[in-house]
Amino acid sequence: MGQQSGLSYAVIGTGAIGGFYGALLQRAGCEVHFLLRSDYEYVQQHGLVVNSVYGDFTLPEVNAYCDASAIPRCDVAIAAIKATQNHILEDILPRIVKPNGTILLLQNGIGVEPQLAKLLPDHYILSGLCFICSNKVGMGHVHHLDYGDITIGAYADRYAPAGITKEMEAIASDFNIAGVPAKLTENLQLARWRKLVWNIPFNGLSVVLDAKTDAMMANDATRQLSADLMNEVLAAAAACDCQIPTEFVPQMIDFTTKMQPYLTSMKLDYDHKRSLEIEAIYANPLRLAKERGVAMPKTEMLYQQLYFLDRLNSKSK
Amino acid sequence: MGQQSGLSYAVIGTGAIGGFYGALLQRAGCEVHFLLRSDYEYVQQHGLVVNSVYGDFTLPEVNAYCDASAIPRCDVAIAAIKATQNHILEDILPRIVKPNGTILLLQNGIGVEPQLAKLLPDHYILSGLCFICSNKVGMGHVHHLDYGDITIGAYADRYAPAGITKEMEAIASDFNIAGVPAKLTENLQLARWRKLVWNIPFNGLSVVLDAKTDAMMANDATRQLSADLMNEVLAAAAACDCQIPTEFVPQMIDFTTKMQPYLTSMKLDYDHKRSLEIEAIYANPLRLAKERGVAMPKTEMLYQQLYFLDRLNSKSK
Repeated sequence: MGQQSGLSYAVIGTGAIGGFYGALLQRAGCEVHFLLRSDYEYVQQHGLVVNSVYGDFTLPEVNAYCDASAIPRCDVAIAAIKATQNHILEDILPRIVKPNGTILLLQNGIGVEPQLAKLLPDHYILSGLCFICSNKVGMGHVHHLDYGDITIGAYADRYAPAGITKEMEAIASDFNIAGVPAKLTENLQLARWRKLVWNIPFNGLSVVLDAKTDAMMANDATRQLSADLMNEVLAAAAACDCQIPTEFVPQMIDFTTKMQPYLTSMKLDYDHKRSLEIEAIYANPLRLAKERGVAMPKTEMLYQQLYFLDRLNSKSK
Repeated sequence: MGQQSGLSYAVIGTGAIGGFYGALLQRAGCEVHFLLRSDYEYVQQHGLVVNSVYGDFTLPEVNAYCDASAIPRCDVAIAAIKATQNHILEDILPRIVKPNGTILLLQNGIGVEPQLAKLLPDHYILSGLCFICSNKVGMGHVHHLDYGDITIGAYADRYAPAGITKEMEAIASDFNIAGVPAKLTENLQLARWRKLVWNIPFNGLSVVLDAKTDAMMANDATRQLSADLMNEVLAAAAACDCQIPTEFVPQMIDFTTKMQPYLTSMKLDYDHKRSLEIEAIYANPLRLAKERGVAMPKTEMLYQQLYFLDRLNSKSK
């Protein structure tokens, strides 16, 4: 175990991801401030509870806020809300992060950073891709089922490969000290496409087929369909100059077959009648591929099906 | 109204289709014999009830049988069972149809006739494509919601275009006299592909999306997806030398938008935990297209999804 960097963190979105990583950073001695909405009073009184394969723990006291203006400006703002809620970031982020401070976006999909960079041109934007099975199971209560490592890269205009800075190293070090395996990458776009290789098949199919990963892997047709979708992602990534080796597809299928049966975050969002992150995970990759003349018919069909289900689901709230 | 042909009919599968057309033929004065399984005793005692947009009617007495051997051999055997049950036809058909008699297959999909022709080489095989919204709603009880017309064509080896015979005309005349608009076609394969233009999108999507036709037509994404699937069917049909004009796609979308909200037969099968007719409606068209080098990625994905759901559904019986 090393020494924390001394960076202060503000967490927006204290759920399955933000709540988990924020709690681990605080436990490791970092200064962490949590912005909450519906859970504010509960967490203010009871703190956070984490059940984790890394070991269960409770933080009886956390710095909880319901008003962004009350948070002392931090070095790093961790944005871990749903991509469907990103419209709130324009207002919140400048209040909770120091001028020229850093934003660490923990979200799936692709294409969100360009929007953030336009809104907040003076801030350094990092993205962390979380390879984690984690669910929020109650107020201030996170259940971390499996994995947990994070890959961090810096955003540069149009996802151009960017360098690795001292601040990135400091943040990764804080995560590592907190017990989270953290890696750094110079190619954020490649890391995003690699993550999409998993998210595109399983987030969507879990909703459309009302199924966990193990059931989909046990059936020949959905196993093949998952691989078909992954291969479409590889083709789109290649058209964006992000080469992912073809062996990655059977590796991901094998990995998914062996992992704990998992309800994806999109399936949980659907079951709780929350909006689905289909723009960041499906519409943006489809647009990038189309601009480069690459067809992703099965991915497009999944998006069409999800769009239909998402609209009906919001109406039935 | 003309004069019935004098042909005798045996109906295998007294459900939404066979029960409906058989009852209409009997009401019009034809000799009709019904083979039943689970509904046998009920129908033997109470006859058949038809609620129909053509007009409601009851047949208090019908020739009902639970044993194929008891049926007098008929001129025409109407096979209106689910395609998933076709394995029973090899045993039943020769018992209920005269030597050299005619089989009239009322089923969706493509590729079933070659199997029947191999099993029963001495019989004349006709297929009737039913454009109908009809459901079996109880024992001996059919609800006919909309449409009802039938297109009849003869099967020749590999779906080669075949002539129109006197017997086809006699059968079509019996249907017409019974109140069913019946047309004859020299090109059965073309008629089958045209029918698939509707069945491929809506039968499958209604199951996967748990939706009626009106909801799918009211959403831009599923409206487009339906058209995408239809265009794949047109491309596959063209590769099989069956030209369907491209205007047929917007026509079918328009037609579906205007029709009564409808639960497809495949959705009803799924809800009642019956096996789905996915081999005849999806696997066979996919195989024909693939043999001719035509890709149908969205149709294939729908088949993969249905295969998954069908397997889980049978297990949960």
